[in-house]
Amino acid sequence: MRVSIVGLGLIGGSMGLALRRLEADVEVVGFARRREVASRAVELGAVDRAEERLLNAVDGADVVLIAIPVMAMKDMMKAMAEGLQKGCIVTDAGSTKAQVMDWASEYLPDTVTFVGGHPMAGKETSGIEAADADLFAGCTYCLVPGPGAAAEAASTVEGLVRRIGARPLFIDAAKHDRLVAAISHLPMLVSSALVSMAAGSPDWPEMSGLAATGFRDITRLASGSPQMTRDICLSNSDSIVRWIDEYVKELTRFRHLVANGGDELEKALTLAREQRETWLRERR
Amino acid sequence: MRVSIVGLGLIGGSMGLALRRLEADVEVVGFARRREVASRAVELGAVDRAEERLLNAVDGADVVLIAIPVMAMKDMMKAMAEGLQKGCIVTDAGSTKAQVMDWASEYLPDTVTFVGGHPMAGKETSGIEAADADLFAGCTYCLVPGPGAAAEAASTVEGLVRRIGARPLFIDAAKHDRLVAAISHLPMLVSSALVSMAAGSPDWPEMSGLAATGFRDITRLASGSPQMTRDICLSNSDSIVRWIDEYVKELTRFRHLVANGGDELEKALTLAREQRETWLRERR
Repeated sequence: MRVSIVGLGLIGGSMGLALRRLEADVEVVGFARRREVASRAVELGAVDRAEERLLNAVDGADVVLIAIPVMAMKDMMKAMAEGLQKGCIVTDAGSTKAQVMDWASEYLPDTVTFVGGHPMAGKETSGIEAADADLFAGCTYCLVPGPGAAAEAASTVEGLVRRIGARPLFIDAAKHDRLVAAISHLPMLVSSALVSMAAGSPDWPEMSGLAATGFRDITRLASGSPQMTRDICLSNSDSIVRWIDEYVKELTRFRHLVANGGDELEKALTLAREQRETWLRERR
Repeated sequence: MRVSIVGLGLIGGSMGLALRRLEADVEVVGFARRREVASRAVELGAVDRAEERLLNAVDGADVVLIAIPVMAMKDMMKAMAEGLQKGCIVTDAGSTKAQVMDWASEYLPDTVTFVGGHPMAGKETSGIEAADADLFAGCTYCLVPGPGAAAEAASTVEGLVRRIGARPLFIDAAKHDRLVAAISHLPMLVSSALVSMAAGSPDWPEMSGLAATGFRDITRLASGSPQMTRDICLSNSDSIVRWIDEYVKELTRFRHLVANGGDELEKALTLAREQRETWLRERR
C-alpha cells in the first residue's frame, strides 16, 4: 500500500514515523511546500521518499493524507484532484470536519473516496522537528466518512488508524465540530486569553516572576501554531462562539460564588474535581 | 536550629523533606491534626519526630512554619501563641498574605516575629503522600516581613528558603495578593469552570471520549484541594473578582475576533504565543 502524506508538520510527520515503524507493506511518500521540510522528513525517517511536486507525490497513492491547516485544504484539494488515481482514498487530519467534508465533495473527483479524520492528539510544538511516532498511541481518532463513502474505504482508513495505535471513532461532522469546540477549541482560546490578559497588565514585569508551573500548564495551548488555531476558529466559529458564551456564564457563576464566599464555592470546586478525576479514570 | 512544621500536607511535608535532606544542624518537628498523617510523615522521613500536641510541637522551636489552608490559620495562631518561645520566628506558606499578616499581628505574641511566606510551587495532588523534597527547587518564594519584623528574622527565613533551593523575593502583602490573583488564583477557577462547563453539558458522555491531553493539562488545577482553593478565594476575593472581570473582557475580545474572522485573530494568537515563549525563556 502506498500512503502519500501531504503536509509534513507535527501531524503529517508523526503519521509518517508511525506508519514506517510498522515495517509492513506500507510505502510512505511525502510532500511539503518547503523543500527543506521535505528533506528533513526524509532524514528523520518520516517518509520513504519526498516528492517536490504535489502531483508526483499523490501519483499512484492508495491513500492520501492531507495534514495541513484547515483553511489551506480547499486549494490543496483542488490542486491534487487531477493527480489522484481512480479508487484512491483521501483522508485528512484537520481539527474541524464540516467545512472540510463540503470541500471534499466539491473539489475531489467522483473517482476517489473521502473519509475525514481527526486524531485527538497534539502538542503545543509544531513542525517536522516535533514529530513523534508515539503521538497517536492510545488516542481517539475521529473518522467521518463522506456521504458517498464505501464501507470498504472507511475500513481501510480505520485499519491504518488501528495500526498506528489509535482508537477509531466514527462520528458525523456536525456533532464532531460541536463537541470538539468545547474540549479542544475553546481551551486554546482560554489559554491564549489568559496569557494576553496577564502579559497585557502593567504589573506583568513583576507578575511574570511569580508565575509558576500552574500558569505554565494552563497556558500550554497558547504556544500552539497561531495559523492552525486561526483556521480552526474560522472553520468552526459558530460552535466556538457558542461555547465561549457558555464558558463566560460558568465563569460568572464562579465569580458570584467567590464574591459571596462560603460553602457553595467549595461544593462547586469539589464537584469539578470529582468530574475531572472520573474522566481521568475512565480514559485509561 | 529547631524548625517545627505545623500541617504535614503537600507543602509542609515537602518542606520537611527538603530541610532534612540538608543533613545539617536543623531538627524538624512535625504536627498534624490527624495522627496517621503525623506517623506517615515520620515514616517518609519528612520530620525527625512528630508531636501529638500542638504546644509540644512548637515548644523550643526557633522557627515555626504554618502550612495549612489559609482560613484555618487564625485559630492555629491563637492555639499556638502561648507555646512559642521568646524570639521565635513564625512563618507560613499560605497562598494569600494580607489576611494572614493581619491575623499574625493580632494573635501572635509580641515576643515572636512573623515573616509571611508563599512558595510559588505546587502540584494538583495534595497530602503527605504527594510530598516531594524537590518541590521548591528553583521556585520563587515570596517573603513578607511583618511591620515590626527585625531584619535578622527575615534573613533567617531567607536563609532557609535559599537552602531548600528556592529564590526568595521580598514583596508587600497587598501587592503579592493582587499579582498572585492573576497568575495563580484566577487560573484555578479558569480550570474548574472549564471542567464544570464541559461536564455539565448533556453532550459530556460523548465529549469526554474526545477530550485529550490539551483538556487534561488546562484542567489540571481543577484537581487541587477544594478546601485550599476555597480558602484562597475567601481571603483574596476582591483581587480575584477583579481579575475574573478582566479575564471575561479578554475572552469577549477573543469572541469578537473569532466571530469576525481574519487577520486580527491570528495577530492576537501570535502575540499571546510570543508573550508566553518570552516568559518561558526568561524564567529559566
